[in-house]
This record gives sequence, structure tokens and C-alpha cells, in this order.
Amino acid sequence: MKTVVNSETTEVVISREGPITLIGERINPTGRKALAAALLEGDLDYVRRQAITQAAAGADILDVNVGVPGMDEAAVMPEVVKAVAAAVELPLCIDTANPESLAAALAVAPGKVLVNSVNGEEESLDTVLPMVKASGAAVIGLTMDEDGIPADAETRAAIAERIVERALAIGIPIEDVVIDPLVLTIGADPTAGRVTLDTIELISERLGTNISLGASNVSFGMPERHTLNQAFLALAIRAGATCVMTHVARLGLSIRATEALLGRDPFAGRYIKMFRRQQD
Amino acid sequence: MKTVVNSETTEVVISREGPITLIGERINPTGRKALAAALLEGDLDYVRRQAITQAAAGADILDVNVGVPGMDEAAVMPEVVKAVAAAVELPLCIDTANPESLAAALAVAPGKVLVNSVNGEEESLDTVLPMVKASGAAVIGLTMDEDGIPADAETRAAIAERIVERALAIGIPIEDVVIDPLVLTIGADPTAGRVTLDTIELISERLGTNISLGASNVSFGMPERHTLNQAFLALAIRAGATCVMTHVARLGLSIRATEALLGRDPFAGRYIKMFRRQQD
Repeated sequence: MKTVVNSETTEVVISREGPITLIGERINPTGRKALAAALLEGDLDYVRRQAITQAAAGADILDVNVGVPGMDEAAVMPEVVKAVAAAVELPLCIDTANPESLAAALAVAPGKVLVNSVNGEEESLDTVLPMVKASGAAVIGLTMDEDGIPADAETRAAIAERIVERALAIGIPIEDVVIDPLVLTIGADPTAGRVTLDTIELISERLGTNISLGASNVSFGMPERHTLNQAFLALAIRAGATCVMTHVARLGLSIRATEALLGRDPFAGRYIKMFRRQQD
Repeated sequence: MKTVVNSETTEVVISREGPITLIGERINPTGRKALAAALLEGDLDYVRRQAITQAAAGADILDVNVGVPGMDEAAVMPEVVKAVAAAVELPLCIDTANPESLAAALAVAPGKVLVNSVNGEEESLDTVLPMVKASGAAVIGLTMDEDGIPADAETRAAIAERIVERALAIGIPIEDVVIDPLVLTIGADPTAGRVTLDTIELISERLGTNISLGASNVSFGMPERHTLNQAFLALAIRAGATCVMTHVARLGLSIRATEALLGRDPFAGRYIKMFRRQQD
């Protein structure tokens, strides 16, 4: 199954056959004070530099999240989307829980974006999916609903199936739904990693959709988080993840290494290209 | 299936349920000039320090290889075995292709050792297995024979089955055979990692024996070998490897991380213990 997104100039195909798609996570003010300050001050140069740096590091898609408490997100989001789209040629992932902000972003974003995200809650399904359909976007569906994030893989997979059904019902093709199985920290629950890996396998078997993952939660509160994140991404890719939301400069090489080890990178060409990017 | 080895004081159980067993690889002069020089000079203090350092880093078993070209291996091996056994409490893995050296080691090694290795060649089976049986040791069986290392998983698994059959025929129980599926560099063959992972899965299904792996060959000739080795170990453990021959101080944390992510390390206790060892 192929999920295709694009900017005015660049097409990115997410699939099980091709390379893992790398979504740059750095345009997100959560835990990044300098970016939060830049957004509050309207300093778009700072945002542009974040975009350019991630593109140079090998990101395929850039996530855009401007959620700063107290800020008028719906006013800032379209300005940031335009700035990022003008700075780099990559397709965008519009990351917001605010419907007005999403509408404002979709109105100005070039090409076909990835909407991040819908989830299994009725309100989310009813609000987000029609906007995705109307703009011809693709969407990331989170495996959580009114009851939170299920503790087991079966219930998470059932939510994924519900999201896909609801998307199909209003005319969004299944290939435009990417499922994020979510991951919690193993510091709080020793089965947290295992449940997410099992969810990826279940969704791969039953739905065959593309699967996106933000890996860093798995190590929250643990020492040497980088080592845990690297190992988890290798395991997640083996299980069937096709798309990773990550700090590309830090974890891109490990992801390309996993592809090469699984025989998905002939003569390790992408691995070596990623290595060279990091030498520049 | 449980493979049990021991020293005079310490028992190590290799199994699919418990922790991955870490075999310290550093007492091996291949590519280590200082150790080769120490062995030629009979400097056993140097060897003892290597043993103590690896035990402190968290090794469960220590590999002992004294193969220096031109040196009388059968004379040096028992001295090194005695020195290592006196320096640390860990069980040993006697690593030699020389039957006299193996006999000399087995005559002096305390407890139940792991013999590294037998392979599918008739001469190796006929020579090594009777020595393993006579001394009550366990043995690592390499999936190679007169035709070299097979390019495909099926043929490697067939060699593993032959080694197990021959061991059983002379009264070595199957739990005392650990299979090493071998790995070649992805730099020469893009399928090299995949074939080894597939071999691990086949052997796990068909034989259920413990599986040992030396991971570092996979990255030979490649840049940033550490990143490749880390990712490969995560994939190999997921596939069914139960035992890793490695530089414990460098890769032990990544191995414990993988266990924690797979839900095999309740509350990440072993991961955190390994992290603390590295802080000392």
C-alpha cells in the first residue's frame, strides 16, 4: 500500500517496499523554549532555519506544530506553514489538535499534506475526517479514543480498524490513512514496548496500512534514552512500521542501518548517503 | 531449552526466557596487537586485566582464544585458562580450531565450559564432538561445512540440524548444543543480514536450541559500524538469538535495552544495572 504526499515540487511515497519515511519532528515547541519564544515573537527566520537543517539532515517530510499555550494558534499556523513551504521543498505534516488551526493550515499548504492527527474519539472522527477529505490530504490515525490509550494490542488495532472504516465511509481511500500505534514509556510499564510492537504486527496483518511511529516516548524517564530509542526503532521497523517521526540528525542513521540489515537497502546506498550527510 | 554452563562458583543459564547471555569477546588476539604481544611474552597479568575488565562490564561468560600465528597454542592455552579462571568467577568459552589446544584447555578448565566451536565438516564433527562428550561440556555449532558458509538460510539450518543429530548420536543432549548462524558483511552482500536473521528464525522454529551470535562481522568495511552492530543485535534478539559474543562495555547496554523493549526485563532492572556499571 502506498501513501503519496507532496509539496509543489517533491513527491514522497510511504510504503512497505521502499525506504522508511523520515518525518522531521523539530518544528514543535513542546519542550523547546527557543522555538516557543520565536513563535510568540513571530520570528519566522528561526522556524525557517529549523526546516532547512532538518531537510539537510535527510528528512523526507516536516512536521509543523505551533501549539504554544496562550498563543492564537489559528493565526500563527498559516504563517509558519507558508514560511516552511517557502524554505524547503519537502511535503508537510500538519500537527495540531485545534480544528481552526488545521483549517487555516490546509487553506495555505501547497500540495498534499499529511494531517496529524485524527483519533478514535467521535468528536475527532466527525471533525477531522471531513477536513481531510475536502482538502484531499492523507491523515495519521492515533489508536486512542474516549477511554484513552488501550493497554493491549487488540484494542488498539480495533480502534485503527474503526478509523479506517470511518475514513472509507466518507470517501478517503485506505491508502491515505496512516496508523500511529502510539507508545508509552517502559519506565512506567514494562510491557509498553511489547504492546506497541504487537500492535504494529496486528495492523500490518489486518489492515496493511502504512504505520507511523514517534519512538522517543518509549524511553521517557529512563537513562541513556538514545540507546533505547535506537533499539526500539529497529524492532518497530522489523514489526512493520513504515514511517518514523524523529530527530533525523540523531536517529536517521540507525533507521537506515536497520533497512540495510533487513536487505531493504541494496548495497547500503541510503545508509552511506545518510552517513555522508552527517559528515557535512 | 536451557543450556547450563558453570565455573567453580557461578552458574550461567542460556535460555529464551531469561536474559540474553553476554560472552565477552576480548581475550582474542585477532586484531589486538597488545594482547598478541602479551601472549607471546607470557604476560598473564595483561590477560587477567582483560578478564577482570569484562567481568566488571557485565559479561556472563568469557571467551578465551589464544591463536597467535607461530605460537605453540597448546602450550599457552592451559596457562591462560588457569589465569582467567583464577582472576574471575565466570564460566569460560574455549575458542580454538586446534584439537590439541582444546584438549589442553579442557584438562584444566574448571566447571562446565562452552566449546567454541564445531562445524558441519566431517573432520570437525569427528574430532570435536567426542571431546565435548568426554568432558561434559556444551558446544557452539557453526552453520558452515566443507562448502563454506551457505548463502541461504535453508542450507544453514540444514547444517545446524546435522550438527545436532551428530551430537545426539554420541550422547550430547540437544540443550548442550548452541548454534551460531554466522553473519557476513552487508558491505559485500546486501542480503547478508537478512539471511542470518532468517536462519535464526528457522533454527528457533525447527530445533529450538539456543542461538549464539557474534554480530560485528555484519558491519565489516562499513562506516559507523557501531550503529549497524546495535541495530543488528536488536533484530537478532527479536529473531531468537539468546547469546551474544560481543564487546560487552560497548554493546551490553543496547542488548539490555532490547530485552526491556521486548518486555523481557521487568521494570528495566537489568538495563539500569548495566547503565550503572558503565558509570563506574
